[in-house]
Amino acid sequence: MKSETNISKRQVAGLLLDGRARDPGTRGQGRAPANIALCKYWGKRDEAINLPLTPSLSVALGELGAETVLEPIDAADDIFILNGEEVDLRSEAARRVVEYLDLFRPAGLRLRVDSRSSIPVAAGLASSASGFAALALALDDLFGWRLARRDLSIMARLGSGSACRSLYSGFAEWLAGERTDGMDSYAVPLAGEWPAFRIALLMISTAPKPVGSREAMRRTVASSELYRSWPARVAGDIAEIRAGIAARDLERVGRTAEGNALAMHATMIDSRPSILYWKPESVAAMEQVWKLRAAGLKVFFTMDAGPNLKLIYEQGDSAEVERNFPGLRVVAPFGL
Amino acid sequence: MKSETNISKRQVAGLLLDGRARDPGTRGQGRAPANIALCKYWGKRDEAINLPLTPSLSVALGELGAETVLEPIDAADDIFILNGEEVDLRSEAARRVVEYLDLFRPAGLRLRVDSRSSIPVAAGLASSASGFAALALALDDLFGWRLARRDLSIMARLGSGSACRSLYSGFAEWLAGERTDGMDSYAVPLAGEWPAFRIALLMISTAPKPVGSREAMRRTVASSELYRSWPARVAGDIAEIRAGIAARDLERVGRTAEGNALAMHATMIDSRPSILYWKPESVAAMEQVWKLRAAGLKVFFTMDAGPNLKLIYEQGDSAEVERNFPGLRVVAPFGL
Repeated sequence: MKSETNISKRQVAGLLLDGRARDPGTRGQGRAPANIALCKYWGKRDEAINLPLTPSLSVALGELGAETVLEPIDAADDIFILNGEEVDLRSEAARRVVEYLDLFRPAGLRLRVDSRSSIPVAAGLASSASGFAALALALDDLFGWRLARRDLSIMARLGSGSACRSLYSGFAEWLAGERTDGMDSYAVPLAGEWPAFRIALLMISTAPKPVGSREAMRRTVASSELYRSWPARVAGDIAEIRAGIAARDLERVGRTAEGNALAMHATMIDSRPSILYWKPESVAAMEQVWKLRAAGLKVFFTMDAGPNLKLIYEQGDSAEVERNFPGLRVVAPFGL
Repeated sequence: MKSETNISKRQVAGLLLDGRARDPGTRGQGRAPANIALCKYWGKRDEAINLPLTPSLSVALGELGAETVLEPIDAADDIFILNGEEVDLRSEAARRVVEYLDLFRPAGLRLRVDSRSSIPVAAGLASSASGFAALALALDDLFGWRLARRDLSIMARLGSGSACRSLYSGFAEWLAGERTDGMDSYAVPLAGEWPAFRIALLMISTAPKPVGSREAMRRTVASSELYRSWPARVAGDIAEIRAGIAARDLERVGRTAEGNALAMHATMIDSRPSILYWKPESVAAMEQVWKLRAAGLKVFFTMDAGPNLKLIYEQGDSAEVERNFPGLRVVAPFGL
């Protein structure tokens, strides 16, 4: 299933900048929302430049996200500040940021990266998607490139696959693309507002995950026999969710998103060794969602590579849903 | 994936008996063990005569099983006695037995069916496999047909698919076959004793299942996209388990059986609506098995269409396994 390519992130950066000057201004700023996939990104066709095996579809989390300010500094090393605290450059998080900056900046330019995330630390949400999307926007601003959204999406993808979907508010679809250089693998916005749409974070556990999601994705592609049918599953689901969004049909979107998340977890469970992110409490919460739905409440869930649930419902059912799941962190993607 | 066939159970019964007389003696008796699949039977290519989409492989449960005595009676209706108590003929269980008898007996012959099962009622084990295998043997005895084991296996299959594997002690493989009349779809014994092999029932819940296993199998085949890769999963697993049995390699048998059960559950989870037999306590028990294994104990699990686990280990680890899982019902398939 892997496309053979010899292209590097640096070469893709060159294609994106297309000869643009790399002279920095005095300050660059970028801001991007977090996103949650309703049709999951699971499996890469190219690990080097984050090309997916399938398309995916997400909703942006409105105000929840990252804001980053870049400033050139006269120093031997970059400075990376996250939520007001300086991060050790030897940490994994800082290393990824520095390597990302290196793709785009001229040699010798050092930067102060001041990033703030409004995602609750314990929310079980990946912060890398909004983080790299904000960083791409800040770089574009700092250098005055004025890249097209589509190119900014590709640029963000080089930092973290799902970051390419964080360039837009509302719903977005990441087109898998076919090219080995990935220049056709970017996200596009899906038209339309859906003010009543709600997505809420139900925390099950904040304990460290037994397997990281990169490794889980890799192991699934390498060892799950059932994963071979995943692309067909996605093809059906993404069309269904797209149609459901166009019709503002929560039932259609919710059922399909839930089934898609379960299918992704099924491919993990089928991996060898098996990857089971569900805790006993995850299963109890899933059962509760199904029980409420059987009683007529329109509430659905999605899950990412972890034990937590994200509930999907409409504003009219907010009180009932929130009464049944105390401690929900509710997001109104299109504003309250 | 379905083979189109117009053949009925009655026609298959005719092929099996091949003109043999249907004159009963005064008494027929049959006895058969229960069995647990290490490579699962999941999905039919023919619902009418129980033909599977894939092969499967099981171990018989020694003393645990069914014993049935048949006697012609002069009465208007059959009498069905289960564990000493008469069963209402309008019940689902009795109806299945009567319909099964009708396939083989001459019109007008009424029978007293006295069946005893040594499977603990709350063990979460299907009793239909040993029940129909014992019934097939009792019919063969009653009519004096002396059918070959292979034909008895086909005969049992008409009652319940997995019953075809209950004609043997020890390990058995159900060959899927290709014929539309199913005359090549029967179980064969796998050579060799493995006295140290243990399988133990870990009860999680005796509550009624939300979805019956027939319906679950049907829904999986009809709606799980990932199920399309199940036959390839089985092909690999069954070869691996066969080789592991030949080598008395518990690790190889156990890991593969566990992965195969997880793959089957993954196809159920991917069904729409999703079928999740796991209770929170099932996940906790799976986690405990994995924790013990990480600590060096050779213990594995398999699961059927329900929340309970069956632990697989060797006699040398009995004390340690049984200490960690109080209340286990231990089976020594080859005797103690």
